[in-house]
Amino acid sequence: MVIPLGSFIDALGGQLHGASPSLAISRLAPLESADAQCLSFLNNTKYQSQLASTQAACVIVAPAMQALALSRSGGGACIVTDEPYLYFARATQLFKRHQHQPQGPRIHPSAVIEDAAQIHDTAVIGALCVIERGARVGAGSVLKARVTLGEGCSIGQRCMVHSGVVIGADGFGFAARPASDAAGAGWEKIEQLGAVRIGDDVEIGANTCIDRGALDDTVIEDGVKLDNLVQIGHNVRVGAHTAMAGCVGVAGSATIGAHCTVGGGAVVLGHLALADGVHISAASVVTRSILKPGHYSGLFPIDDNASWEKNAATLKQLHSLRERIKDLEKRPERTKPT
Amino acid sequence: MVIPLGSFIDALGGQLHGASPSLAISRLAPLESADAQCLSFLNNTKYQSQLASTQAACVIVAPAMQALALSRSGGGACIVTDEPYLYFARATQLFKRHQHQPQGPRIHPSAVIEDAAQIHDTAVIGALCVIERGARVGAGSVLKARVTLGEGCSIGQRCMVHSGVVIGADGFGFAARPASDAAGAGWEKIEQLGAVRIGDDVEIGANTCIDRGALDDTVIEDGVKLDNLVQIGHNVRVGAHTAMAGCVGVAGSATIGAHCTVGGGAVVLGHLALADGVHISAASVVTRSILKPGHYSGLFPIDDNASWEKNAATLKQLHSLRERIKDLEKRPERTKPT
Amino acid sequence: MVIPLGSFIDALGGQLHGASPSLAISRLAPLESADAQCLSFLNNTKYQSQLASTQAACVIVAPAMQALALSRSGGGACIVTDEPYLYFARATQLFKRHQHQPQGPRIHPSAVIEDAAQIHDTAVIGALCVIERGARVGAGSVLKARVTLGEGCSIGQRCMVHSGVVIGADGFGFAARPASDAAGAGWEKIEQLGAVRIGDDVEIGANTCIDRGALDDTVIEDGVKLDNLVQIGHNVRVGAHTAMAGCVGVAGSATIGAHCTVGGGAVVLGHLALADGVHISAASVVTRSILKPGHYSGLFPIDDNASWEKNAATLKQLHSLRERIKDLEKRPERTKPT
Repeated sequence: MVIPLGSFIDALGGQLHGASPSLAISRLAPLESADAQCLSFLNNTKYQSQLASTQAACVIVAPAMQALALSRSGGGACIVTDEPYLYFARATQLFKRHQHQPQGPRIHPSAVIEDAAQIHDTAVIGALCVIERGARVGAGSVLKARVTLGEGCSIGQRCMVHSGVVIGADGFGFAARPASDAAGAGWEKIEQLGAVRIGDDVEIGANTCIDRGALDDTVIEDGVKLDNLVQIGHNVRVGAHTAMAGCVGVAGSATIGAHCTVGGGAVVLGHLALADGVHISAASVVTRSILKPGHYSGLFPIDDNASWEKNAATLKQLHSLRERIKDLEKRPERTKPT
Repeated sequence: MVIPLGSFIDALGGQLHGASPSLAISRLAPLESADAQCLSFLNNTKYQSQLASTQAACVIVAPAMQALALSRSGGGACIVTDEPYLYFARATQLFKRHQHQPQGPRIHPSAVIEDAAQIHDTAVIGALCVIERGARVGAGSVLKARVTLGEGCSIGQRCMVHSGVVIGADGFGFAARPASDAAGAGWEKIEQLGAVRIGDDVEIGANTCIDRGALDDTVIEDGVKLDNLVQIGHNVRVGAHTAMAGCVGVAGSATIGAHCTVGGGAVVLGHLALADGVHISAASVVTRSILKPGHYSGLFPIDDNASWEKNAATLKQLHSLRERIKDLEKRPERTKPT
Repeated sequence: MVIPLGSFIDALGGQLHGASPSLAISRLAPLESADAQCLSFLNNTKYQSQLASTQAACVIVAPAMQALALSRSGGGACIVTDEPYLYFARATQLFKRHQHQPQGPRIHPSAVIEDAAQIHDTAVIGALCVIERGARVGAGSVLKARVTLGEGCSIGQRCMVHSGVVIGADGFGFAARPASDAAGAGWEKIEQLGAVRIGDDVEIGANTCIDRGALDDTVIEDGVKLDNLVQIGHNVRVGAHTAMAGCVGVAGSATIGAHCTVGGGAVVLGHLALADGVHISAASVVTRSILKPGHYSGLFPIDDNASWEKNAATLKQLHSLRERIKDLEKRPERTKPT
């Protein structure tokens, strides 16, 4: 499969310099591994040196990089656009569309579709999916193999749900049963009577779980992107265009704003609110509501084990060290040595 | 579907005040979103102000809140009980039973049941489950869609296993093979010859994994509740009525007591013991055995990123700061200023 | 099933002392729970006291422990080998081979195998697996039930892939779309055009996910062992014989060396490099490349909750405490008390 450079310009805009629109591109590649059949891109000016030495046939660049792109020693072309990385993203989509895509059945015969499920004519349901009673899948959405969509849960339009995802399992709700109760001490199940509602243009990574609400619904708004192995508890609301990396856990009834990002392995405790535009670093634990947009972090810095052991041990005395500093500060100070 | 208030009293006890037993309830709802068709509950006195303003037809309250519940401006009824939250839990169960529940096949025809599996007549096996050779499922237990129950593993009575769960995959056991070995340096598999035994009234969340034991069995005792994406290593024992929130990891051969709670994302290292009644905060890492009941924590507090960076950088010098404080304390102290 | 001691010697080497090769062994067991039908092992000299009191028929020991093993009060035999734990691992394999193993179909009839998938004649594909178009499985590899192997992805020889694994879901790649774009602010998908290549002798735990690469492939080298619920991002490379415990997350484009170990729940951020022989403690977060072999850690020590609260609160002032120590150190010091 080859795509002439002109097809990118026709489909995605941008200005082509230094090569004919008929020049054939066979792959997309990073600057350092690109060869003369490749289209590449420069997104970050700190990789300028790679631009100078790349073997790529053509490089997607911002206007400020045009001169440098055209002056490379090996020669070569560039496509100039204000948003090179966005242009690259759309170029990957163009390549994907050009790949040979044999059409399987719209609903794979091995999928289990229960009564009263509503699947749009243009939605695709992969092999061995389970779509429970009353669930709904909107136009253009794709469920890859082995997805569970629980009873009464809904997915909007143009969503992509990867293999192994479970939408609509019961939220984790139990009331403590005292020893005085006839059934004895233990946990009494709170039946989860809500569902999950997922908006449009949402992508959900492999083996991620989104629980149904206890009374009301769990809600994932339009444009949300969740990576693999993410856990979304019951009655959580995730605001539009928020993205969460792998292994994030969001506990029940948390409300996450729009256009937030949550780094891999981070945890958001239950019943908290995050404002729009909050960015949480990887592996940080959100223990209080964050009402102001910004970048928040909380993770123990890694160190060689011996140093870590010494510092971690001292950490257990930190409060008392502060008291000792206070005591030292209270000592009378001489204004000059005697 | 509507349920008259009297049906709750008949099934669950409590005293109804301020309304006729024939008053019809159509939903359960939190105080703040309840309307005149709703039954609601007050579990925590800090939400008293919501009680005063709720539109709920009836509110489940403790005896001390009865007067307040009946004096609300909009009028309204209450059900008085010593354990409002437990009563609410049982009310969700009543609603669940009243919902239209079309009966599918007891063992879904798409499930794969291997030879010599023993499934009780009253157990339910969902779509696309795999029940391997010699596995057992007890009376009244429900496996939702796409569960794997491994060879020789057993589940007790009245358990609920959510979609995507894997019970009885191999534990993670390897012996290091030195370079001098004929097979070269690497890892030699320790075959996992044990199984998993799960007691009664256990609930297991979506995509959670419980590994089979190496020589003996991995054991989950009665009444344990595990949330989604939890990892239980080989030969772990989880004591009765212990609950673990999402994304918890318990490494091999750990022994967790009864009536413990483990917060989301926490990690328990291998070969440790936790006493009964130990409560671990979310995202904390248990690195030593805990022999005394209580509440234990260890997580880095979140902060704005700039403050975190400064404190985290200083943390790497913490031990040396302690030494500097010691040195300062050794300095001779004047008893009074000159 | 019983195995005479001599069969272990014949198959695995070692010297048998104190018993006849015809003595029948029915189980493997740890020293403390072994009975007179058991073969056990002593790997760590700190368990010497268990050796003295074990009821095991025979114990696998290093040469230095031979005398102690033979002098036990109850009598008993030993197998002497330089690597007792490795010998034990191979003994588990011998037991596994002796167990009754009814042969199911090589490719389970419920598995979905798409066109142009290449499955070696000796590979085993479990129930309800999905092998997508163009995927390849090498000789002797076993996919347990409910595994997804994505389009164009490959698995080498003698691999073991546990239930629920997803290989070849899309990597998490999106370009930010500014509000000025015709489609509005949000995330534009970067199609993931690479695949996943897995070497020989790799084991992958239940519900683990390995994403396909964006442009190039994600690569798992020979002999790698991944536990359950591990997340491997796109374009990651994991070096030969590296082992990762449960719930580890490795973000995109990280390069992990050979013979590394990563403890449970640890996180490796994207685009980092770890040298060969790097060992990361459980729950630590790797935020920078580590170019030197060694043992690295970074986790907050657990404490009783009240102590943790005091220390964690003080941690937010740590940088200012350092400044206060500096100020104290600048105070003039008397050389001797007045």
